[in-house]
Amino acid sequence: MSATIAELAALIGGEIQGSPETIVTGAQSTADATAVDISFAVDENNLRLLANSSAGAAVISRSLADSETAVGLAIPLILVDDALSSFCRVLEHFRPKRPRSEIGISPAAHVHDTAAIGRSTNVHPGATIGADAVIGENCDIHPGVVVGAGCHIGADCQLYPNAVLYEDVSLGDRVIIHANAVIGADGFGYQLQDGAFEKIPQLGTVVIEDDVEIGAGTTIDRAMIGATKIGQGTKLDDQIMIGHNCVLGPHNVFASQVGLAGSVTTGEYVMCAGQVGIADHVHIGDGARLASKAGVHKDLPGGQAYVGQPVQPERDGMRSLMALHKLPEIVRRMRQVEARVIEIDKLLAELDDGQQPPLAKAG
Amino acid sequence: MSATIAELAALIGGEIQGSPETIVTGAQSTADATAVDISFAVDENNLRLLANSSAGAAVISRSLADSETAVGLAIPLILVDDALSSFCRVLEHFRPKRPRSEIGISPAAHVHDTAAIGRSTNVHPGATIGADAVIGENCDIHPGVVVGAGCHIGADCQLYPNAVLYEDVSLGDRVIIHANAVIGADGFGYQLQDGAFEKIPQLGTVVIEDDVEIGAGTTIDRAMIGATKIGQGTKLDDQIMIGHNCVLGPHNVFASQVGLAGSVTTGEYVMCAGQVGIADHVHIGDGARLASKAGVHKDLPGGQAYVGQPVQPERDGMRSLMALHKLPEIVRRMRQVEARVIEIDKLLAELDDGQQPPLAKAG
Amino acid sequence: MSATIAELAALIGGEIQGSPETIVTGAQSTADATAVDISFAVDENNLRLLANSSAGAAVISRSLADSETAVGLAIPLILVDDALSSFCRVLEHFRPKRPRSEIGISPAAHVHDTAAIGRSTNVHPGATIGADAVIGENCDIHPGVVVGAGCHIGADCQLYPNAVLYEDVSLGDRVIIHANAVIGADGFGYQLQDGAFEKIPQLGTVVIEDDVEIGAGTTIDRAMIGATKIGQGTKLDDQIMIGHNCVLGPHNVFASQVGLAGSVTTGEYVMCAGQVGIADHVHIGDGARLASKAGVHKDLPGGQAYVGQPVQPERDGMRSLMALHKLPEIVRRMRQVEARVIEIDKLLAELDDGQQPPLAKAG
Repeated sequence: MSATIAELAALIGGEIQGSPETIVTGAQSTADATAVDISFAVDENNLRLLANSSAGAAVISRSLADSETAVGLAIPLILVDDALSSFCRVLEHFRPKRPRSEIGISPAAHVHDTAAIGRSTNVHPGATIGADAVIGENCDIHPGVVVGAGCHIGADCQLYPNAVLYEDVSLGDRVIIHANAVIGADGFGYQLQDGAFEKIPQLGTVVIEDDVEIGAGTTIDRAMIGATKIGQGTKLDDQIMIGHNCVLGPHNVFASQVGLAGSVTTGEYVMCAGQVGIADHVHIGDGARLASKAGVHKDLPGGQAYVGQPVQPERDGMRSLMALHKLPEIVRRMRQVEARVIEIDKLLAELDDGQQPPLAKAG
Repeated sequence: MSATIAELAALIGGEIQGSPETIVTGAQSTADATAVDISFAVDENNLRLLANSSAGAAVISRSLADSETAVGLAIPLILVDDALSSFCRVLEHFRPKRPRSEIGISPAAHVHDTAAIGRSTNVHPGATIGADAVIGENCDIHPGVVVGAGCHIGADCQLYPNAVLYEDVSLGDRVIIHANAVIGADGFGYQLQDGAFEKIPQLGTVVIEDDVEIGAGTTIDRAMIGATKIGQGTKLDDQIMIGHNCVLGPHNVFASQVGLAGSVTTGEYVMCAGQVGIADHVHIGDGARLASKAGVHKDLPGGQAYVGQPVQPERDGMRSLMALHKLPEIVRRMRQVEARVIEIDKLLAELDDGQQPPLAKAG
Repeated sequence: MSATIAELAALIGGEIQGSPETIVTGAQSTADATAVDISFAVDENNLRLLANSSAGAAVISRSLADSETAVGLAIPLILVDDALSSFCRVLEHFRPKRPRSEIGISPAAHVHDTAAIGRSTNVHPGATIGADAVIGENCDIHPGVVVGAGCHIGADCQLYPNAVLYEDVSLGDRVIIHANAVIGADGFGYQLQDGAFEKIPQLGTVVIEDDVEIGAGTTIDRAMIGATKIGQGTKLDDQIMIGHNCVLGPHNVFASQVGLAGSVTTGEYVMCAGQVGIADHVHIGDGARLASKAGVHKDLPGGQAYVGQPVQPERDGMRSLMALHKLPEIVRRMRQVEARVIEIDKLLAELDDGQQPPLAKAG
């Protein structure tokens, strides 16, 4: 497959700088692009990578057009408002997505008689839909997915292979659940009775609002009472753990391997980098940003960044960490000062011996 | 559905304080309860939440009955010995559990001819049971579960969807394995030979004793020789990793995302909070409690709490952490003292100049 | 089953010390061996465990034969070059592996018409193979595995139950993917637009080279553009997260619960202990070794060991950590020195009062 710059510019509604007849045969990142590939630049940093790349053409942000680096590029450019989205469309031109299969309800799926499946929804071979489950329109229920009894799933949802929804879980519209994620397993609660841990029934459920995406292998436990909730538009990466009765606000973004104990609540636009851990019953305020591996044991006001274990505001935490790295040096200097003070004491004592009262008071 | 306080008190064998004719239509946590809901309180903390809630009635611990907060409540109360268990029964009254399906061995399951399946055990569609596997009575083998050849499963076990048991794994009675957990994958062992890592055969197995519960996505690797063991009554949360040849004692409780390298052993009643990591061949004594994110590299005596990376007894660790947070301040004060000592030295030198011998010795 | 030492020595090509007629009935680790079991020792440490064990015989490294501990053993020994491999063969003699089933393509598998499956490859019941997928010879595609459309799988690969390959993933030869691993889920990328996070299409793929082993529950995300790559011979343990566009070199070894954000690159023979986290776009040089829980935010030169959060070279890091543990003591001493310096100041001031000028200058 090949295309001229003119054709691609028409496709994405961009403005051409340089030769419109140049032909490219693929789209690649700056790292992988060869002379027959078109690449892209969203910012100055990308532009520098582009200038050092072999790319034969590029889609760049219109705002970069007058920058020195852009002006120095000898390749045809297509200027657009949103270079990343436009480049993705170019990429899809060269590598068209497989069309969505329209298989409806596969005879090799296991669908309970009482389940209701919406129009244009695919239920793939090996998927299981439990009693009384309701699934909206245009969903894809991939092979091996298990939708428990009584689940409610909105429209336009994607459930990737082997994802599991326990009973009575509720998903909004346009929810994406990646492979092997588990929604609604029992919360982790026990009472010690006669030396053994007795299971506390987990009788609540999980509610996932519209436009949420949940990564592969992520687990979201059902509430003991009430519901564990994931707010609208929140995005969870792979292998995240959300304990029972957590309530996440809208538009949170959590990177992989984050773990939340029970009953954690968050405001909106909370961000967690990888491997953050948050203890039970903690509240994280709107717009708080937690650095990777942060460990949180108390409520955090929103609107700022936090680091460390236990977590501190970023500025304090960075100071503590820098100080920690200087610590062996500090200890060494400490010892020198101590030694010197002891010497001074000795001197003063000697000085005192040859003198009058005042120093006699020294302890 | 609705019920009077009298009906609910009869259901749970409780003593009524206030109007027995009050009608409630649901059961909720204090956070979610409205005036037509019954809620509960196990301790003083719950009581305060209850006092501030809209709940129309409550199940409370008999021991709280005389507390000032309880006496001040204007709603009907039901007094019981175990408020949590009793409330769960009330909750189930309003939201009855789906009855267990009695499907036996589904024709859509893949069960090997040589497998033996106990009476009243369900094998759901899409589950696979390997050769020579033996499964006890009253088990539920949910859709997509794979029970490898030669596995032995006791009675009353729950294997949730897509859980996987590799070959020759053994489960006791009343074991619960949540969705997508993997029991018996190969331990992680290699020998470097001619520049490449050669796999060391993992010829052992996994033995899980009675009353163990294993969370969603948790992985327990098989031993190289012998068996990885999980002791009776031990509870593992989601996304825990147990390496090959670990032997966990009875009644351990591990929160999610804990990771144990190979050959770790634990006593009884060991507790790990989330994201703890334990290095290989370490032993953790009876009743040791590890705080979240603790990193363990050496044997730990039981009976106490530990924190930090590397782990320290809680008291030392909390001191280190507090000191760490004060560290930038310490560094600042350190510099002041240093500066002052230098000045004192200078003064003493000057003092010496105008004086007799003793200070001449100062270095 | 039983065997004489002579028979076992013949099996593994070893040299006998002691009675060749001794009969053993099983093979066990030193910890579990009884008088009728054969055990093994690879090094001096094993030898000491062996000396304290009840084992009735042992396979040991030839290089240990003259050691004092070995000479003192009163049991028959078989001397070999590679005691571990040889013992594994003995172990398999007593517990023979189940023969590989030769079922071909099960009629209960869901294989797309356009998929191509190699000779002697098993596709088990409940496995799904998508359109245009190509699978080499002698592979085992276990129950519940999903191979997406357009995937290419080499020869002699093992895909354990419920592993998922999204579309267009590529595996080399002799690749092992353990249960519930997910290869090729969407990378985690969004743009904030009008207050909501819009998904950035993840149009790349994942390429896994020859002889790679991937643990249970591990997730490897597909690239946005280009490919996430796992180099030849690299071994990943359970529950590891590899973000989009990472490129791992050959012969890396990562223990469980390691997490890599996007676009991390590694050289060859990089080792990560458990729960390491690496931030996006970082490069780790050849032969770097990261200790458990290390947190990496910048490029690391190869050839050395690193520890801590943030990571430091091992020596610096160990010093910082030791200093950290001494910190409360340092703070205490710091306060003493401060107090003493204040006293000295006072003394000097008093001394000054009874004297001539020089000290009058003191601040």
